[in-house]
Amino acid sequence: MEFPSKLIEDAVNEVSKLPGIGKKTALRLVLHLLKRDEEQTKSLAETLIAMRSKVKHCRKCHNLSDHDLCGICASHKRDRSLICVVEDTRDVLAIENTAQYKGMYHVLGGIISPVEGVGPSDLKIESLIDRLRHPDSDAVKEIILALSPTMEGDTTAFYLQKKLKGFSVKISTIARGVPIGGDLEYADEVTLGRSILSRITYE
Amino acid sequence: MEFPSKLIEDAVNEVSKLPGIGKKTALRLVLHLLKRDEEQTKSLAETLIAMRSKVKHCRKCHNLSDHDLCGICASHKRDRSLICVVEDTRDVLAIENTAQYKGMYHVLGGIISPVEGVGPSDLKIESLIDRLRHPDSDAVKEIILALSPTMEGDTTAFYLQKKLKGFSVKISTIARGVPIGGDLEYADEVTLGRSILSRITYE
Repeated sequence: MEFPSKLIEDAVNEVSKLPGIGKKTALRLVLHLLKRDEEQTKSLAETLIAMRSKVKHCRKCHNLSDHDLCGICASHKRDRSLICVVEDTRDVLAIENTAQYKGMYHVLGGIISPVEGVGPSDLKIESLIDRLRHPDSDAVKEIILALSPTMEGDTTAFYLQKKLKGFSVKISTIARGVPIGGDLEYADEVTLGRSILSRITYE
Repeated sequence: MEFPSKLIEDAVNEVSKLPGIGKKTALRLVLHLLKRDEEQTKSLAETLIAMRSKVKHCRKCHNLSDHDLCGICASHKRDRSLICVVEDTRDVLAIENTAQYKGMYHVLGGIISPVEGVGPSDLKIESLIDRLRHPDSDAVKEIILALSPTMEGDTTAFYLQKKLKGFSVKISTIARGVPIGGDLEYADEVTLGRSILSRITYE
């Protein structure tokens, strides 16, 4: 594609570095900004720079936060005996949106993936073990592994189970089965198979 | 959605102002930037600001340009007897990519759309007429209307035809018919009907 302007070409190249945005979409976004007030572009740019330079990771759970300690770790209303281990901030958001969980989190910052060159040492696993060794107030009673039901997620869960064996802590994983509201006939075989194996008895 | 950080929330709100980007995609993009070097965010932000503040409109054809006169209007290799009238810069890019057209352009900056409150006076129609009145070198011989085959495009084309009636200039429109490579059975009835009416005789 030949651009009418070097400035537009540069902008399109920068925007198309973002995941899931190709050259055509980038051009559409750039042309949109050119149609709008200069203020909008400035505001977008400045907000991104401020966000990138100021956002921190919570020193305890490694979730993204404006402060040293994130809102969840600082809160006194959360159940400190539960730690939910997730891959990244998006998972925390997803679980928080359910309003079903009142415990703490631990954000690994990724999952073990030999293909992408991510090993256990790249993740916040040591700091999870540190949290078990030096519990702040109440002792941690349960660690919930809420990792994606993929090969990488299972590998990470398996590694964590081994690492956490020495501690007197219950380890659980979120249930896998047919999604609620999903038609049974459209569930894939693996999920349906697992949901039969891990069936729940009515009490 | 409750964000772990006000800074992230602000960034997501700004990014989701872009067309076709919702809160979820915006969050994905913002988290991507947080994973990458701070340099990448700075470079993105600075490029966008530079682009927005410096890109101009060509004083002749109103295409986006780094200079007062765009590359096409400044070129001596283009055929100045042809002017192709398009809606916006994306159309110029699309036509340039075909490498089939060597004339000039005129970018209207939109199309007549009563629904969106765009009237003829919001478009660069007067300046197109000025170009016919004061041709730079060669007189313009043909105006090609390359507008979208929609209600708005047709309205704009009709309006332009009326406006250009007084000038001794040929007015044409790009051919409409079945797309090349498209299966005939999947062409919509209107397109197929038009393609029969405007059939081309083998010479």
